[in-house]
Amino acid sequence: MAAAFKSETEFVAWLSRTNPASSGGLRLGIGDDAALIRPARGRDLILTADLSIEGVHFSETIQPPESVGHRALARSLSDIAAMGGTPRYALVALALSEKTDRKWTERFYRGFFRLARRFEVALIGGDTSVKCGRVVVDVTVVGDVPGGAALVRSGARPGDSIFVAGTLGLAAAGLRTLRSGSTPGRSSAVRAFLFPEPQCRLGEFLSMNRLATAAIDLSDGLSLDLARLLRASGVSARIHADSAPAPGLRGKRRRSRKQALSFALSGGDDYKLLFTVSPRQISCVPEKFENIRLFRIGEVCDGSAGEVWIEEDGRVRQLRETGYDHFRRV
Amino acid sequence: MAAAFKSETEFVAWLSRTNPASSGGLRLGIGDDAALIRPARGRDLILTADLSIEGVHFSETIQPPESVGHRALARSLSDIAAMGGTPRYALVALALSEKTDRKWTERFYRGFFRLARRFEVALIGGDTSVKCGRVVVDVTVVGDVPGGAALVRSGARPGDSIFVAGTLGLAAAGLRTLRSGSTPGRSSAVRAFLFPEPQCRLGEFLSMNRLATAAIDLSDGLSLDLARLLRASGVSARIHADSAPAPGLRGKRRRSRKQALSFALSGGDDYKLLFTVSPRQISCVPEKFENIRLFRIGEVCDGSAGEVWIEEDGRVRQLRETGYDHFRRV
Repeated sequence: MAAAFKSETEFVAWLSRTNPASSGGLRLGIGDDAALIRPARGRDLILTADLSIEGVHFSETIQPPESVGHRALARSLSDIAAMGGTPRYALVALALSEKTDRKWTERFYRGFFRLARRFEVALIGGDTSVKCGRVVVDVTVVGDVPGGAALVRSGARPGDSIFVAGTLGLAAAGLRTLRSGSTPGRSSAVRAFLFPEPQCRLGEFLSMNRLATAAIDLSDGLSLDLARLLRASGVSARIHADSAPAPGLRGKRRRSRKQALSFALSGGDDYKLLFTVSPRQISCVPEKFENIRLFRIGEVCDGSAGEVWIEEDGRVRQLRETGYDHFRRV
Repeated sequence: MAAAFKSETEFVAWLSRTNPASSGGLRLGIGDDAALIRPARGRDLILTADLSIEGVHFSETIQPPESVGHRALARSLSDIAAMGGTPRYALVALALSEKTDRKWTERFYRGFFRLARRFEVALIGGDTSVKCGRVVVDVTVVGDVPGGAALVRSGARPGDSIFVAGTLGLAAAGLRTLRSGSTPGRSSAVRAFLFPEPQCRLGEFLSMNRLATAAIDLSDGLSLDLARLLRASGVSARIHADSAPAPGLRGKRRRSRKQALSFALSGGDDYKLLFTVSPRQISCVPEKFENIRLFRIGEVCDGSAGEVWIEEDGRVRQLRETGYDHFRRV
């Protein structure tokens, strides 16, 4: 029998035993009609849901199940980070395919729980079904943030500086290595793709200190996600190619430099924060937060909402939105 | 092109225009990295997620898209009802298949929004993707309830009466009609299957008046869902076949009566509440709540947790769990 568990009851019992994390305010977790939480006073709640679909967002042939579970949760944690919040609870809707066995399901949750434990996120509910043709995961995460302190996309103003937290394009390079079929080893690029690190603590730091005027997480590529933030704020931006935090950008070969820039601008799955800072706050931005370097890559300008101009080798050109759009890439 | 919309941006813009409902406490809805709500003081939050998968939970050949959207939301609203809560917000993760066109998506949301509007539920977020092979929907609903007043499965005690709100087996009869291919017309059974009515106001009434010791919604059939409630409470139950609220149970033909009882006990998709009431509260249970008749169908007993005994024609037999289990029915 292909189904991972004999019955829903057996599956829920296994899940409850395996679920390691608990979070303050939880009154009732898995096993009733719904979960019950008591929200902390004075805090706003943040809610986000993200799909991970076999063949669209992940591939069984290049990813271990632990990576699928990790990334399914990381996508939502990164959204909470972009709002400046602290993740608290997760719900997982997991539709399994006929081919999925119990081992796969256990390894999926091992990856999921390993990340959940590190961020003290409690799995509090969800739904599961078998015979879906392919694996489809939807992870809903609930986080919170001090009332009124959430970071949104719409607050960027002309003159603000644009920052990126950490290097870009690493995950795209890792994906290329994995797709090439070469033995990937444990390179940092491959690791960045398989097990991206959501920047929740940086998000909390930015919201608590009211440092950012706007923020977004880079899931679909810098060019696409920056344009989204700019449209929401009604502004444009100019970025500087030579300050883009892309590994390999200052290499010797022109072709490698071009590739590095392309990965940085259009490669998806980075899950780094992009945020804007007003001129009077700029001196408060540290060079590094924990082990993450913060790079100033450009500035917000007046002009057509959503336009991104890039300065490269002394010339300025408009950047096309070439990131990952789940509607266009089909 | 099969994809419903040209880009995610276009889809989100359409969705934001179409989304009719708003709900108190909403600070930021669709369009940012996540949604933001300010919870009402003194209330607990209820969270539930439910999958609806093409070919598992619904069939394109017998259901209009409006019914798929309605039922996807109704499943989660019914969970909120079973906790005694008021639904407030919804997130929709919608994975479309290559065959789904824009028209289908619009009709899906028409059904979804029609129900959302009636319960004043605001769509505040989610995710969408195309090219999933088949349509998979995950609806997360957030509701709330006065602090400490939520109805849970685990509170039933020996001596409590067991109630069902409304008739059972109607949706199963409707599904049979639809599957038979006969012109269904607008029969109440077909309607019960296509557009089930979540009993949220009854749930609120039970929790506000502290009338129920335990509750569950009947989504997978009485025999299976009652057993779940009993296991959670550590008790057993005896129910009376002739008091089961099944249409056709008192008909002339023995075969029809048997079928009616089978639909009532094992037919899924009823989305009626089942709840237990202590002896000292029993006189407070009205015969009808709004237009829903409340039927006393049996009582909670000591004995092996989860066992259901049924009294029929003077004989007592143990009821097998024969409802819909998404792990077994594949």
